Amino acid sequence: MLKIGVDAMGGDFAPEAAVEGAVMALEAIDAGSRIVLFGDEKRIREVLAARNCPTDRFDIVATSEVIEMGDHPAKAFQAKGDSSITVGFGYLAKGAIDGFASAGSTGAMMVGSMYAVKPIEGVIRPTISSLVPTAAGHPALILDVGLNVDCKPEVLAQYGVIGSIYAEAVLGIPSPRVAVLNIGEEETKGNAQAKATHDLLREQEGIRFVGNIEGSHIFSGKVADVIVCDGFVGNTVLKMAEGLYRINKALGGGNAFWDAMNYENVGGTPVLGVNAPVVIGHGCSSPLAIRNMILTTESCIRADLTSKLQRAFRN
Amino acid sequence: MLKIGVDAMGGDFAPEAAVEGAVMALEAIDAGSRIVLFGDEKRIREVLAARNCPTDRFDIVATSEVIEMGDHPAKAFQAKGDSSITVGFGYLAKGAIDGFASAGSTGAMMVGSMYAVKPIEGVIRPTISSLVPTAAGHPALILDVGLNVDCKPEVLAQYGVIGSIYAEAVLGIPSPRVAVLNIGEEETKGNAQAKATHDLLREQEGIRFVGNIEGSHIFSGKVADVIVCDGFVGNTVLKMAEGLYRINKALGGGNAFWDAMNYENVGGTPVLGVNAPVVIGHGCSSPLAIRNMILTTESCIRADLTSKLQRAFRN
Repeated sequence: MLKIGVDAMGGDFAPEAAVEGAVMALEAIDAGSRIVLFGDEKRIREVLAARNCPTDRFDIVATSEVIEMGDHPAKAFQAKGDSSITVGFGYLAKGAIDGFASAGSTGAMMVGSMYAVKPIEGVIRPTISSLVPTAAGHPALILDVGLNVDCKPEVLAQYGVIGSIYAEAVLGIPSPRVAVLNIGEEETKGNAQAKATHDLLREQEGIRFVGNIEGSHIFSGKVADVIVCDGFVGNTVLKMAEGLYRINKALGGGNAFWDAMNYENVGGTPVLGVNAPVVIGHGCSSPLAIRNMILTTESCIRADLTSKLQRAFRN
Repeated sequence: MLKIGVDAMGGDFAPEAAVEGAVMALEAIDAGSRIVLFGDEKRIREVLAARNCPTDRFDIVATSEVIEMGDHPAKAFQAKGDSSITVGFGYLAKGAIDGFASAGSTGAMMVGSMYAVKPIEGVIRPTISSLVPTAAGHPALILDVGLNVDCKPEVLAQYGVIGSIYAEAVLGIPSPRVAVLNIGEEETKGNAQAKATHDLLREQEGIRFVGNIEGSHIFSGKVADVIVCDGFVGNTVLKMAEGLYRINKALGGGNAFWDAMNYENVGGTPVLGVNAPVVIGHGCSSPLAIRNMILTTESCIRADLTSKLQRAFRN
């Protein structure tokens, strides 16, 4: 039985939204998967009862503390040893669950990723990524989206490899096209960072590097499946897309392309390059967003993503 | 009489689109403004005749050469001494015209800006900017959008001042709100460049600095009128917006907000921080795009933008 750990106390509307999202996920996960909820057992049972969901559909690990958004992530991760996130990462590190997802403190999730499950050997700096919709109908993966805002080219080149493995293993894209986000298509274009990254990725074996991609093609789907950029640029791209999604929605322009831009449908932000599947959700996650975050976590587990990444960076 | 110089040979569809755009601009410019066309006089007259436009509505400066997109900008600017761009900048430098606009070689336009009219004393590096629409109905100015992709904080801080003067003088926004594009609103957020720029702009006198703006608010109009970023990020923002505009249009989602995103309506890219108004248009400019580029140039001239910038950077 595959076990998906879920922080029932994570997010602005926990535990209600988190538990309701887990109930929604039940319909979609594989028969061989089981969701393990970490949190206040009494409150979890209350939400399940209100939804007429039998408690035995889940494993519940009772925890007594919560890392709040205002807490210092690293200090709280230590000090609140019985928090849902700290306990969840304990289970993940010892192999009692196969992946962990939370819409709680992003900082604490990163602390757990870096210090409990730890970076994969050979990965300079783990990354957070996001899926964006494309006009071609299939999603593209963009990374980094905010973890590493001052990146060396060697770090960005690794993101090309990590993204390629994710796109193939989890998204099912054979031989995914990897590109560097840049201000022009020509290889001589760009800032020093993008040019050096381009040079490294051109020589990288095992990936299908297609060169530079301009901002105009991020969402076209015509050029690349995996888009590499530093966390400053990636975060700006992602937030700008979210802002335009909201404007477009307010203007009444709904359609499948823009709906896929809605964070609720994106399925959370995978932390990539650490020794277990970890997925972080928006703090404001709705039950639907939680459901999709859980499905992303399950996909990472079923795709055996961690082993594939570990093998790729093994000397 | 105020004189607006226009390169009739600039752009993929010149001279037809350029001259037709100039004819369209006639209806919109001030009675005290006159357009000076630089280019192949015979072909200009042919286009005017085809449009039933009397030749005497324009000044025409006959030139015999054209700097092509494939030409090396700096070399061609020198070698093609009778090109429309080189002659146009000659007129601009000697004060025979008050501003110059072209949809031709961007590189040659920058060579002319830097070496014929030259940077304003005190400006470390001139910049190119662009207007973006906002959901609030008024435009925002974003700079730099691609000229300087590796920027020191001192350069970016000057862009805050330049943008503020432009927004007030040309866009008519009193006390425009100036922000640094960043990955979080808190002043401790960001990469090294954004943090240092934030610190410099916070101490900058004469502008209304409102702190950081996230990507989600570039198009909201709620936070800032002037958005400062390096040319790598700004170019990505602009091209991403263009790409989403095209996708949205293809999906049938037209409305005033998205229409304002159309490059044809943006009015070209002003070069800011040089000793005369210079505006660069898209290579693929339609007559409408040319018309709006000419109107932007006229606005810069009428606002006395250059003098205001010169005074701001005078010691």
